[in-house]
Amino acid sequence: MNLTGKNLISGEFSGDTSHGFTAFNAQKNQPMATLFTNATEVEVNSAITRANEAFLSYSQLSANERATFLRTIGEQIIALGDDLVDVACAETGLPAIRIQGERGRTVGQLNLFADLLDKQEYQTVIEQGDSARQPLPKPDTRLGYLPLGVVAVFGASNFPLAFSTAGGDTASALAAGCPIVMKAHAAHPGTAELVATAILKAIKQCNIDAGVFSLIQGKKYQISTQIVTHPLVKAVGFTGSERVGMILQAQINQRVEPIPFYGELGSLNPQFILTNKLANQGVEIAEQLVASTLMGQGQFCTSPGIWLAIDDSQSGSCDLSSYQNFIDKAKATMITQPAGVMLTPSIRSAYNEQVTQWQTIQNVNLIAQGQQGEAFQCRSALFATDLSTFIKNKTLQEEIFGACALIIKCADFAQMLQFVTILKGNLTASIHALDGDLMQAQQLALPLAHKVGRLIYNQMPTGVEVCASMNHGGPFPASTAITTTSVGSEAINRFRRPICYQNIPSELLPQILRD
Amino acid sequence: MNLTGKNLISGEFSGDTSHGFTAFNAQKNQPMATLFTNATEVEVNSAITRANEAFLSYSQLSANERATFLRTIGEQIIALGDDLVDVACAETGLPAIRIQGERGRTVGQLNLFADLLDKQEYQTVIEQGDSARQPLPKPDTRLGYLPLGVVAVFGASNFPLAFSTAGGDTASALAAGCPIVMKAHAAHPGTAELVATAILKAIKQCNIDAGVFSLIQGKKYQISTQIVTHPLVKAVGFTGSERVGMILQAQINQRVEPIPFYGELGSLNPQFILTNKLANQGVEIAEQLVASTLMGQGQFCTSPGIWLAIDDSQSGSCDLSSYQNFIDKAKATMITQPAGVMLTPSIRSAYNEQVTQWQTIQNVNLIAQGQQGEAFQCRSALFATDLSTFIKNKTLQEEIFGACALIIKCADFAQMLQFVTILKGNLTASIHALDGDLMQAQQLALPLAHKVGRLIYNQMPTGVEVCASMNHGGPFPASTAITTTSVGSEAINRFRRPICYQNIPSELLPQILRD
Repeated sequence: MNLTGKNLISGEFSGDTSHGFTAFNAQKNQPMATLFTNATEVEVNSAITRANEAFLSYSQLSANERATFLRTIGEQIIALGDDLVDVACAETGLPAIRIQGERGRTVGQLNLFADLLDKQEYQTVIEQGDSARQPLPKPDTRLGYLPLGVVAVFGASNFPLAFSTAGGDTASALAAGCPIVMKAHAAHPGTAELVATAILKAIKQCNIDAGVFSLIQGKKYQISTQIVTHPLVKAVGFTGSERVGMILQAQINQRVEPIPFYGELGSLNPQFILTNKLANQGVEIAEQLVASTLMGQGQFCTSPGIWLAIDDSQSGSCDLSSYQNFIDKAKATMITQPAGVMLTPSIRSAYNEQVTQWQTIQNVNLIAQGQQGEAFQCRSALFATDLSTFIKNKTLQEEIFGACALIIKCADFAQMLQFVTILKGNLTASIHALDGDLMQAQQLALPLAHKVGRLIYNQMPTGVEVCASMNHGGPFPASTAITTTSVGSEAINRFRRPICYQNIPSELLPQILRD
Repeated sequence: MNLTGKNLISGEFSGDTSHGFTAFNAQKNQPMATLFTNATEVEVNSAITRANEAFLSYSQLSANERATFLRTIGEQIIALGDDLVDVACAETGLPAIRIQGERGRTVGQLNLFADLLDKQEYQTVIEQGDSARQPLPKPDTRLGYLPLGVVAVFGASNFPLAFSTAGGDTASALAAGCPIVMKAHAAHPGTAELVATAILKAIKQCNIDAGVFSLIQGKKYQISTQIVTHPLVKAVGFTGSERVGMILQAQINQRVEPIPFYGELGSLNPQFILTNKLANQGVEIAEQLVASTLMGQGQFCTSPGIWLAIDDSQSGSCDLSSYQNFIDKAKATMITQPAGVMLTPSIRSAYNEQVTQWQTIQNVNLIAQGQQGEAFQCRSALFATDLSTFIKNKTLQEEIFGACALIIKCADFAQMLQFVTILKGNLTASIHALDGDLMQAQQLALPLAHKVGRLIYNQMPTGVEVCASMNHGGPFPASTAITTTSVGSEAINRFRRPICYQNIPSELLPQILRD
């Protein structure tokens, strides 16, 4: 395949690539060939303006027409074949099986929202008038939904397909009826271009205004600033680090018109291993947690970064304690893990720096590392500490993005509860328990639920089911918009808003609100 | 009745009233007797801290228990009897019949949310697991809702009951499971105190932690700042002017943790009178519009501030045109309207200043005024201008809070459509039309819907039905949170957030999510 390296603005490729940037092949540890453009201010403005011009016509498509469009995008993504997998693997360092799975999920998300659109009346309410009501007649009122307008979406480094160009934000916003201005992540611009061409084919096939989708390439800070502060942009979807998310939030806060900012940021995803579970299945849990931590080289937002277990080794007995067995198994499993590449050189540097820094903290022990690989690869790491050290050191409370976990040795169950009180918002938490742990699990679940978007029992946090009952979000800093989810059917409600039609004759009502 | 003038903090009256402020009796044009305290920093902090302490227990009440609590608040408000009506009338200058109606609406809102809680499964989703699914088993996932935490509510000057102490924000947040820290509006502190005592009685009767509700009195700017920037406050509800709303928004933007700000701000509520309607029922519409403008002395957020009609008087005919008939009737009706008092002396001054200022604008004509009353009363006012003057003068595009309307004479239907393109967000708009206008109504409705929270046909905008299909909100500046409504069942979703329970055993699930 040939990559142009250009922006795709309203159906036209544009941009000067001669002074552009390149992606990086993590597996080969070398820059890739294609030069990608840095979108100019004029190009960004043109993309947003065209999107706004396309808004009214796109918003008036029937739900079925939008559903067909979403399904066609999915078909065109599949039609890209191995080219897409090859480019995405090269740009991210992720293995082909992972990219293939993510492609399936991406198409699944598009189809989920298409199915939702086929149930056209989703959450509408019709209340007919009652002219006889006392003391005043009841007007006919009908609750429908309208799309917000142009939506800006930022691609995520760690999900080049499912949270990027045609990912969950794009799919839910297109389903709602919003045009998209997509800022490609500079780490996988080629993947973005390929998916954008798939969307363009779907646009042509469905005879939709090409302004509905534009792809902006660039590695310059001011491009993002221009996008999120543009008056015609009416909502922003972002998946990434807390640091970058809060920069965008601060810029959005400067706008005259407040707009929703759907930032899905970091998460520690604490794992609570209760007493009976530790005693009877501690070894299995240790293996599962290491495997979950290593998934995608730890570059999942749901990676289990903190493991809590109660130390029962203080009895003076010579028998190995359950806690020690768990630790030993975790160490033994971790040291066998092969080194891996990370998404980008800068993510790798950040990971290595944080792992090195944690080693300088008193009472924090690096108890195991994965295998040493090439210089450009990363070793997984397992740390252990106690609760008071964790509480004292803010740096331990920040996510390390990568294959690293911290075990917090609790003196007793009360310390687990104490941990929950200081815990900030998280995407997920898991409780690992057996029947005998049920009472403690109940005590833990009540306050813990208030700190997370998804509460899990005896399962690993990695792997997010895409379905109507999913929530992917949670209290800050897991998300900047606590009342919303970025995964699952409800994600559509981030990009549409209620409108009440009062006493409106049938001819003027949207089809779905007519009698 | 005896008013203490104090704060009500977690069941205890507190505060030094000796250097406090008084309310103003608009009808008598004199300050009222009771001195009200300015809450101290310690008192505000205490109210918020106690609310947070009460959060976990209150959030765990069953939906039925919360429903009973809401209904009991309503009963206790009714039990306040005429005292409440007398104080509210004195503090606001609104007539008793209006306050009685508003009381009914307030109780109706509490009962609406109680009824909603009785349908406990409201918007929950249960998807059972499927261990046989390929390629991966489907986990059991169940979508429930949790309250956000402490909610700060600001009383509205123009709705001393329905948008104040036990008004829509409080009712929906209590229904969601959130404790309330209520900032009383300084214009009706006595009304706030009385309603707070009703809530306190309900708290005792239902055996609820008194920290769930506190009332903060004060007329100092820094009290509001402290409330909205407090780390334990997790959402803010506000109904008031765009000016004050944007000050609060800016303060909230300074927080480390972003929280939702539900600000319901101003609105012009444009009225479009189409050709056939103007020709055949222009006189009736003129009367209805004047009556709607005068309701509550024009102090409704849905007051019809802009009327648009097409001038058909340029034909050179000596017959009076439809437009001229409409104008004449509007003028004749307006001049008979009695003067009235406004909510506060400062609102009156602002009204008078704006009306005076509009008279200085070229091509803006004051075509009628209501009757001249006492010096402390306000005269209603009717202005007329053309579209180009409206577009040129930003000041005409801002709401005048009070009994004032501006007629925009359109040269043709295209000018009505042009008006829509420059219109900012509004709570409502009405299209007044007959069958012969249907094609133009359709052309107008499509773009107009994107500018409003409620689109109305042949009815006045004043009077908001409280029901499941209502939306009260809309694009900025009508609201700061476009995806939400402040009236109707959906208002509860402002104060709760989704949570997914994955693979959770029945004993640990909220009752409503069990099999």
